[in-house]
Amino acid sequence: MERKTISRAVIKRLPRYYRYLGDLLESGVERISSNELSDKMQVTASQIRQDLNNFGGFGQQGYGYNVQHLHTEIGKILGLDRTYNMIILGAGNLGQALANYSKFARWGFKVIGIFDVDPELDGTMVRDIPIRMVSELPRYLKENDVQIAALTLPRNQAKAMAELVTANGVKAIWNFAHTDLKLPEDVIVESVHLSDSLMQLSYNMSNYKDKTQKKSRTKEK
Amino acid sequence: MERKTISRAVIKRLPRYYRYLGDLLESGVERISSNELSDKMQVTASQIRQDLNNFGGFGQQGYGYNVQHLHTEIGKILGLDRTYNMIILGAGNLGQALANYSKFARWGFKVIGIFDVDPELDGTMVRDIPIRMVSELPRYLKENDVQIAALTLPRNQAKAMAELVTANGVKAIWNFAHTDLKLPEDVIVESVHLSDSLMQLSYNMSNYKDKTQKKSRTKEK
Repeated sequence: MERKTISRAVIKRLPRYYRYLGDLLESGVERISSNELSDKMQVTASQIRQDLNNFGGFGQQGYGYNVQHLHTEIGKILGLDRTYNMIILGAGNLGQALANYSKFARWGFKVIGIFDVDPELDGTMVRDIPIRMVSELPRYLKENDVQIAALTLPRNQAKAMAELVTANGVKAIWNFAHTDLKLPEDVIVESVHLSDSLMQLSYNMSNYKDKTQKKSRTKEK
Repeated sequence: MERKTISRAVIKRLPRYYRYLGDLLESGVERISSNELSDKMQVTASQIRQDLNNFGGFGQQGYGYNVQHLHTEIGKILGLDRTYNMIILGAGNLGQALANYSKFARWGFKVIGIFDVDPELDGTMVRDIPIRMVSELPRYLKENDVQIAALTLPRNQAKAMAELVTANGVKAIWNFAHTDLKLPEDVIVESVHLSDSLMQLSYNMSNYKDKTQKKSRTKEK
């Protein structure tokens, strides 16, 4: 199927559509108008129509969107119509939290291995997965087809681990380490910087207070 | 101090500047040019100069930026020149991971309480903080000055908990639950949707493959 280029801004909104449509499906809703979806998502109906028109417009005048169909199509665009084998490097709390998210498997992301350097963790089970030692990783990667490595380890280990797994064929890194990674061009890196998010929060807290102190409270809710 | 309005795009980049400048400080670097910073951050020097000019331009021609000064000023803009008391609602792996990030305290975010509904966790220590029961939360919030509540709990509990803490004076929510929260206008919400990030990753994986299959490999690295 040929697809036209979709802007990065739209792509960034797709997971949210996918989430809302998944919720609707679970509640047994079969179709929804852009206006109803707009109310739920706090996005304008025209934005929704515009976004979804990017993929050929799954809506029909007077009928609205078929929830199942739209959910499936957006899932395909997001690459959720196949499965990915994922390993987690770093079996601390964050690594174990990721291993325990049952929804990831439902979306096609299957955690097949967890690795750490702490010998005390060797063999400990997280769900049904034994924690293995990082020293076993090169062999493991040769014997298993791994597409994604999640890095939930200290930043000073992140670079070496990222290089190790990419040298052994892993083409996607989900990076939680508090550093940016410079990797070969064909490696996809998606970073979750928790500290950046926390700083946005404190920025907004400071800024909101400044704002409310400056303007007199004339605004009606 | 009067500040001019800074665009959201710039604000989003500030934590990253703050991180790089913090790294430079730790390595003992006292000043840096926009060109050197550009090399490190993989952002153009003109972008850097433009961004930093928003705050009155801390750089000097022929000298560059004073790293300590710039770090401090960006910290102030991000609201990191004061401290915040934070509680964590949900003492699972993710909640414990957040409680264990020592850097948060260094930036002024102090975790003072952790709450859960599981009686088996009652009194368990995470670092030096005992896990308390959610039933104690209203009284705790009256007796303690809490600015931020992190929600690391299942999505079906997130709404009720967010409403409980905001009704008791908490004005900022750091939301990890897989849902959007609708709260009073004066409550700041910052969400970390891990699934959205994972879906961006799979989108980019699919898209990269499509791209490389379409174009012949003429691009030089």
